[in-house]
Amino acid sequence: MNKFVGSVRIVGAGLLGTSIGLALTKQGVDVSITSRSKKSVELAINYGAGRSATDSDAPTLIVVCVPPDQTAEIIAQELNKFPQAFVTDVASVKQSILLSLEKLGAPIERYVGSHPMAGRERGGALAGRADLFLGRPWIVCAHSKSLPAATDAVRDLASALESSVVEINAKDHDRAVALVSHLPQLVASLLASRLIESDSKDVALAGQGLRDTTRIASSDPDLWLQIFSANADQVSEVLDAFAADLKEASTALGDLSKPENRATLRQVLSLGNTGVEKIPGKHGTKHSTYAQVIVMIDDQPGQLAKLLTDVGEIGINLEELKLEHSPSAQIGLVELYIAHDKEQKLISELELRNWRLV
Amino acid sequence: MNKFVGSVRIVGAGLLGTSIGLALTKQGVDVSITSRSKKSVELAINYGAGRSATDSDAPTLIVVCVPPDQTAEIIAQELNKFPQAFVTDVASVKQSILLSLEKLGAPIERYVGSHPMAGRERGGALAGRADLFLGRPWIVCAHSKSLPAATDAVRDLASALESSVVEINAKDHDRAVALVSHLPQLVASLLASRLIESDSKDVALAGQGLRDTTRIASSDPDLWLQIFSANADQVSEVLDAFAADLKEASTALGDLSKPENRATLRQVLSLGNTGVEKIPGKHGTKHSTYAQVIVMIDDQPGQLAKLLTDVGEIGINLEELKLEHSPSAQIGLVELYIAHDKEQKLISELELRNWRLV
Repeated sequence: MNKFVGSVRIVGAGLLGTSIGLALTKQGVDVSITSRSKKSVELAINYGAGRSATDSDAPTLIVVCVPPDQTAEIIAQELNKFPQAFVTDVASVKQSILLSLEKLGAPIERYVGSHPMAGRERGGALAGRADLFLGRPWIVCAHSKSLPAATDAVRDLASALESSVVEINAKDHDRAVALVSHLPQLVASLLASRLIESDSKDVALAGQGLRDTTRIASSDPDLWLQIFSANADQVSEVLDAFAADLKEASTALGDLSKPENRATLRQVLSLGNTGVEKIPGKHGTKHSTYAQVIVMIDDQPGQLAKLLTDVGEIGINLEELKLEHSPSAQIGLVELYIAHDKEQKLISELELRNWRLV
Repeated sequence: MNKFVGSVRIVGAGLLGTSIGLALTKQGVDVSITSRSKKSVELAINYGAGRSATDSDAPTLIVVCVPPDQTAEIIAQELNKFPQAFVTDVASVKQSILLSLEKLGAPIERYVGSHPMAGRERGGALAGRADLFLGRPWIVCAHSKSLPAATDAVRDLASALESSVVEINAKDHDRAVALVSHLPQLVASLLASRLIESDSKDVALAGQGLRDTTRIASSDPDLWLQIFSANADQVSEVLDAFAADLKEASTALGDLSKPENRATLRQVLSLGNTGVEKIPGKHGTKHSTYAQVIVMIDDQPGQLAKLLTDVGEIGINLEELKLEHSPSAQIGLVELYIAHDKEQKLISELELRNWRLV
């Protein structure tokens, strides 16, 4: 962690603005906060995220943390109001903001966009946490006109918040998030919405697969409508490709007596295997590098801790851990993911300690 | 748990057959095993799943555990070979098997189908576990011609394996799993396959959402091709409905300057919220009944155990637990899900014990 050198002005006192303020204030950085909503500024300040902004402030860096559809306009205002400051934002789309700033004739040399990949299920100032960004990617989008010093300032902010900086241009960013974030969101929402008409008895047969594939369908519709609006072209492109694949699969499914249709559908499933292998796991490694061991525990306080104390004593580091649903019995299934060369040791040591392996 | 009364013959010595054999043998039930593959029978028997089958066996119940596309034929053979025995199977589609048996003129009064909702990432006899079915749903599909005693025998088997029995007819079963299992599988495979052409730099921006929505895309293509083949009509129906929704969303996305298109897209997202709420959580409760508290831990053996020991001492039961990816830093984020009325207590007690809350 490196302390941020200079003072920071935060515009917008929601979850992200408040969290940035809390972290920087903790480090002794002078943080001023402003927002259209006086109430949320008051909350954030009472919460310890900084002080009230004044007209005589001379911030080194301004962080615009307002909803995506207001972001460009506020960035332009801030650039004009503070001609010595660098400005960044935290919106999850980047190219449309840059284009709007150009249209507005804003002095964009001092602007470099950000997209911290962090969030919580709850929003608002009171959900703010100083550690929100710790260990998460912080995407920094320099552009052809931005000053190297502006990029440095944003990089320093991300570093002070203990994020890991990823540098990419705005166009590539938007294309990438259309594929890895916006398309999955839309597909999950569409998949979950199919459940509405179903019998609750049918949904009772749901396994972990349905839970995983639809979890993000619980996201905020208004925020996502803004995100889709700001990245509609890129999302349309990946959605069209997805829809074409879907149509091919659907046609194949229509007559599986034909060998070529069986081959097409098998190909879809097989390409799915290959695609999921491309997603980096924890610390940038692949899913398949871990072995899975499932342990059954009683669903009582302390049982999981006892298991993990044993795993710790055995001296094996967990790469992933997942607690599985047990739809009726009062027991839990714990999935432990560990390095392959530790699998046999873990199994035999856990069995020695009388754990029930599934 | 109730001990199964009678003897059991298992046909097919893969993951499910071996696991059933292991559990029943442990309880002292006489289990005989047979399979087209002599090698896997040998493995399963050495593993403790039962004894070799003989011509003089008189099983009470026969469990057919072969791939879906061979299931009907083997059930018919077994019904004819053992005219006193009840027969069940474990295939994840049910109606096509029943129809095939009728076509084959099999004595289906003694047949009642099963679908135990249990599995592992690895298959084969050596992946078998006596506790595989514990606490999982075991779907039992009686039909218009089946004897009540046949249903009882299957129910007794599920109960001996500590599964929770769900009774539903074959048609409703297939319609339900098309929606809650087969559609999510196909959509996840299609979503993951879109990643193949992408730059690895793009995929590096992936968050937990992409991981969750594509996890099941790593499933076995050959097994799933059989499942889709056996339930093609029902899957086609839900897939068509999904494709129609997708087309509507895609059209809306094409021009979000129109208010009606924005309304359509917002509706998709909002219906997704409603849909995901319908999925029962652990012990049949809803996701949203839990509060989420995120704690940051060092990524070292014993840290997670220490946290959960503290949670146990505080006396709060975890409803869900998830270990989050931290893409670069050597830290882990632990999501604790607890009852809402325990949230404030957990937060203050954990802070007292110097845990870093995110």
